[in-house]
Amino acid sequence: MTRISFEEMKATIKQAYLIAGMPEERADTCAQIHTESSCDGVYSHGLNRVERFVDYIHQGWVDVNASPTLEKNLGALEIYNGHLGPGILNAQFAMNRATEMAASNGLGLVALNNTTHWMRGGAFGWQAAEKGFIGICWTNTESCMPAWGGTSGAIGNNPFVMAIPRKEGHIVLDMAMSQYSYGKLGVTRLKNEQLPYPGGFDQDGNLSTDPGAIEATRRILPIGFWKGSGFAIMLDLISSLLSGGLTSAGMDKLGKGNCGSCCQVFIAINPLMINTQEFIDKVLQETVEQIKGSTRVHPDKPLSYPGENSLKTRMDHLANGIVVDDSIWAKVKELAKL
Amino acid sequence: MTRISFEEMKATIKQAYLIAGMPEERADTCAQIHTESSCDGVYSHGLNRVERFVDYIHQGWVDVNASPTLEKNLGALEIYNGHLGPGILNAQFAMNRATEMAASNGLGLVALNNTTHWMRGGAFGWQAAEKGFIGICWTNTESCMPAWGGTSGAIGNNPFVMAIPRKEGHIVLDMAMSQYSYGKLGVTRLKNEQLPYPGGFDQDGNLSTDPGAIEATRRILPIGFWKGSGFAIMLDLISSLLSGGLTSAGMDKLGKGNCGSCCQVFIAINPLMINTQEFIDKVLQETVEQIKGSTRVHPDKPLSYPGENSLKTRMDHLANGIVVDDSIWAKVKELAKL
Repeated sequence: MTRISFEEMKATIKQAYLIAGMPEERADTCAQIHTESSCDGVYSHGLNRVERFVDYIHQGWVDVNASPTLEKNLGALEIYNGHLGPGILNAQFAMNRATEMAASNGLGLVALNNTTHWMRGGAFGWQAAEKGFIGICWTNTESCMPAWGGTSGAIGNNPFVMAIPRKEGHIVLDMAMSQYSYGKLGVTRLKNEQLPYPGGFDQDGNLSTDPGAIEATRRILPIGFWKGSGFAIMLDLISSLLSGGLTSAGMDKLGKGNCGSCCQVFIAINPLMINTQEFIDKVLQETVEQIKGSTRVHPDKPLSYPGENSLKTRMDHLANGIVVDDSIWAKVKELAKL
Repeated sequence: MTRISFEEMKATIKQAYLIAGMPEERADTCAQIHTESSCDGVYSHGLNRVERFVDYIHQGWVDVNASPTLEKNLGALEIYNGHLGPGILNAQFAMNRATEMAASNGLGLVALNNTTHWMRGGAFGWQAAEKGFIGICWTNTESCMPAWGGTSGAIGNNPFVMAIPRKEGHIVLDMAMSQYSYGKLGVTRLKNEQLPYPGGFDQDGNLSTDPGAIEATRRILPIGFWKGSGFAIMLDLISSLLSGGLTSAGMDKLGKGNCGSCCQVFIAINPLMINTQEFIDKVLQETVEQIKGSTRVHPDKPLSYPGENSLKTRMDHLANGIVVDDSIWAKVKELAKL
């Protein structure tokens, strides 16, 4: 493990994207978001994803020059075609547009079809919150999880994000519908560890904390068993119905395994058109205090609000450098020809 | 167990509400929704809740004559004060208003403050779907669940509903943030049974399927562990920030334990302003087929889409009468002086 400054990581990722053929400004923005994700500790969609993203560009699965075009404007609801442009840029555009709509009307919803993997969904929640808006967004994905009652993959893990702006640190929830990602299962298996809580079913159909046993069945667990399965189905269908794009089932038929042509929904709400800053501050403080005032399971482990741990990691990484896995960092430097 | 016709159940509940002092049309609507919930198999917020609702009227916690008044109109977003009117009527009004807004603009959001328990949240999802709209709604509640990392109650279980209209049967998700309700724990304990999956923690801090052990600690499990805990916090905060009403923490301070002065959010979207009926039908059919085509965990147990089992129960109950618990039915008849 090494620590790399934010600037060095961003410049390196940007260089890799420039070499892959991205225009300068676009490479800069994508590198910024990948670096921010790593800086917040979300490596899976930050530094660790750079190599795969470059590969997608080479495969022609991402059009580095494409931008969203408006397909329908219903006032508070706009629909865009993402033209398989870079998922980060499309999603950033969509959330920005939603906040513009919310700035004047209180509420804005942008649905995006035919886009590509947005990497870390939370990025667009933080984006809305940074601008002072409540943000809600989600994406569909290809199938990677059985629906409840099934053993074969039928539904996506469809990340869902909610964000609330707050002076002392935004409150941001960023969750996929599976209890653990395949990435987490792999990392835990390589460490010869067990998952802290059951994460899927083994070959005997029992709930298991053994990552290898779950990887073998591919029966990863939806959050809340049947509830997360149902939630994943609804998020998928609503993203398709709002945007006119492909469902998980539709993407599965393309058979590419790259989440190409996925759909996303972005909602922004302007809290200051509804309440005073004083009211908002009071509500947020009262709730954060109530959570933090809980009797603790472990006396030395304070409770946190959603997003708090990301912020703590960010502060540490900004002050001391972003911790990186040496082999992954070496690979990204190679892509940047450094 | 006895079976009672829909009409007899509705007339009996209506009579109980009339005696409790509800105006005729209001008693009729509330009785209709309570009966529909029982008819769909959701007794906890149907027949089984009548006695408690009557008690709330007598306590003065529900104002049987109050109706929502508009506090703010931002175009696609309207905010109402529910004046502690009957939760069912307020919520029905709010979802109806959201669909009216969506009918002309594609999208409508209504936030409601100072309302009372809406009983079965799914009712308002079905309501939107029946009218041809995608519906999303949620409510906050008083604290009844520890936040992740805590052992004392700090967050609500905040039911969340998503509904999609579909000719062959609407697709409706209605889920609270706890894996099981206290009602389910109690019923399972009385049968001397175990929960099918872990539903909370026992006094040793271990995940447990023993309902009595979980009732003793009151450490019911949020869906997806830390994820459902975070989701509950976001739903609570956003409902308060959108409506200007009380959070879970704010309601806790009132100390009434009746979910009075709760907040709710209702979103309606007009799918036909976005896509053709043909596209919608195709998307829904393709996804339902993919789910149902899964390899089954139990060969004789087909998978279902969200809402399908409610619809099956409804069809059976409409054809053969609604199954009721005799002692609860006797109690409701007593309230109706029958």
